[in-house]
Amino acid sequence: MSGEREQAAMRHALNLARRGPRGVNPQVGAVLLTPSGDVIAEGWHHGAGTAHAEVDALSKAPADAVRGATAVVTLEPCNHTGRTGPCSEALIAAGVARVVYAIADPGHDAGGGARRLREAGVDVSAGVLADEAEDLLSGWLTVQRLGRPHITVKWAQSLDGRIAAADGSSRWITGVAARADVHRRRALADAILVGTGTVLADDPALTARGADGDLAGDQPLPVVLGRRPVPEGAAVRRHPRPFLQFDDLDAALADLRARGVQTVFVEGGPTVVGSVLRAGLADDLLVYTAPVLIGGPRLAVHDLGVDTIADALRLRTTQVEQLGDDVLIVAHPPASDHPSEGES
Amino acid sequence: MSGEREQAAMRHALNLARRGPRGVNPQVGAVLLTPSGDVIAEGWHHGAGTAHAEVDALSKAPADAVRGATAVVTLEPCNHTGRTGPCSEALIAAGVARVVYAIADPGHDAGGGARRLREAGVDVSAGVLADEAEDLLSGWLTVQRLGRPHITVKWAQSLDGRIAAADGSSRWITGVAARADVHRRRALADAILVGTGTVLADDPALTARGADGDLAGDQPLPVVLGRRPVPEGAAVRRHPRPFLQFDDLDAALADLRARGVQTVFVEGGPTVVGSVLRAGLADDLLVYTAPVLIGGPRLAVHDLGVDTIADALRLRTTQVEQLGDDVLIVAHPPASDHPSEGES
Repeated sequence: MSGEREQAAMRHALNLARRGPRGVNPQVGAVLLTPSGDVIAEGWHHGAGTAHAEVDALSKAPADAVRGATAVVTLEPCNHTGRTGPCSEALIAAGVARVVYAIADPGHDAGGGARRLREAGVDVSAGVLADEAEDLLSGWLTVQRLGRPHITVKWAQSLDGRIAAADGSSRWITGVAARADVHRRRALADAILVGTGTVLADDPALTARGADGDLAGDQPLPVVLGRRPVPEGAAVRRHPRPFLQFDDLDAALADLRARGVQTVFVEGGPTVVGSVLRAGLADDLLVYTAPVLIGGPRLAVHDLGVDTIADALRLRTTQVEQLGDDVLIVAHPPASDHPSEGES
Repeated sequence: MSGEREQAAMRHALNLARRGPRGVNPQVGAVLLTPSGDVIAEGWHHGAGTAHAEVDALSKAPADAVRGATAVVTLEPCNHTGRTGPCSEALIAAGVARVVYAIADPGHDAGGGARRLREAGVDVSAGVLADEAEDLLSGWLTVQRLGRPHITVKWAQSLDGRIAAADGSSRWITGVAARADVHRRRALADAILVGTGTVLADDPALTARGADGDLAGDQPLPVVLGRRPVPEGAAVRRHPRPFLQFDDLDAALADLRARGVQTVFVEGGPTVVGSVLRAGLADDLLVYTAPVLIGGPRLAVHDLGVDTIADALRLRTTQVEQLGDDVLIVAHPPASDHPSEGES
């Protein structure tokens, strides 16, 4: 069978994966092919407690059609008995001759499926459309690799690094296009987190809204960090999802992870941003810079404990985009969960 | 005659203008065309005290060839008797029938040439390749319009608006490509200005250098602002041009203007940058931002007297360029010497 047919099947499997819900478990898709490359059956993971994608596909195939088949799966088949049995064993038992997967399962429990398959004489090939699968599962992969959600830190600043004028006023520093970009990205995040200082100063709604002000279909879970009470009339209390409040970052991340939150969008203020940065927890940075000069004390970032330039936190720029008169810089620390740049 | 031939002649005149020196007088070029568009003669201004471009061209043309001709000039012919007579009168006396120029002379003394020509029955047309001529003469035009050199403020900062770590170390925040861009722009400036604080802290050479460290052919005049003495061993003392020192900005600009300096590149530090910004003297801003986080007290900009967001200094972004991992944002205040955006 040609590599092109397996690659086409992988692309289809990635689309199948997207049909499943985002949650504690990864979105996975699987396609079973005959040795000549025809599709026998397809499947995807429908959520925690249900069959994995491979088993879902196997269940839809005629019993004798799978012997000698190729299974194309977006994630390395698991080798782990959880609420369902290990997919590696199910594939072996069904007589699958070859398994093609996109990315390895980084989990300590679930990993090892490829080795088990090879031990059983199955031909295994990895890395097909790996970048696409990494994109699809970036939040889940961070959870697996680092034991916490993927954290994006965002702020909007003046050209001189201020997020407000001396009196605290900050609406608006950036323009319409930059603010629309923020709302689009908020809608893609599982949770949005700010400190109580920001709630008290800016009274943000923490919703994802369209250009017309309408709520987006997907709303991030609003999370407030800090001990000060959220006022009765605060806009966050009118968010379609009830907000959570935590005393500290570690407690917040542990709770969010348990809820299946894979991506957290941190929107400030400086106290929260500083503690995320100092703890090395920022996986991505989004900095919107407007051509405005403000000066004064309201800085996006206060102290980071950097005494000399050699200790500065060096990032890598992954995207620069002009949005109206503003500029978005996307950057990430080289040592974050981007394993393609470090050890494999 | 077709507009295309006049436009081609104007393009040639702009190139002729560049042959002249930059100084107190503008660089101007002129081409004389027959009524059918053939070139009769060309000229340019060779520097203060010598013939203006139009008179230079007239002097090269056969005496009887100019009657009925078209003069294509990059700047409105002057109407002023200085060290040379008014060009408007010279063109009228020579029998020129039509004058095409790119941009008006904003000078109080020299302006009015177009009106004088029209009064004498000469057909006058303005605005051909005006943008190119504006670019060529931006420094000189600022001097004419504002009575001072064109000021570009440049700084290189971290993503959070710092120009150094707490201990003052700052080499290097930006990368090779950004620093090369700075040197290229320095070589285009007539003068480069820093405060004594920067001299004492960073000991800059204030030279324009190539990638190999060699000095560029054109070196900006080094200028130091402030009362503290420049140390005996300071690198600026080894600059190929002897440095000037002034107590304050007004004195510096007046002296530089008198020397024919049309463009000043202000490279900091924060005290000088702040005073230029607060005085509304920054015609252009160049901010190089590196994907580095530093935090702490060494800010590019301190206080600007902005108490509330409505009073922030709003700029227009004219260029965004990625230079390696860094980003250059070029911006200018809407009310600076960019008359195309305001009154004509």
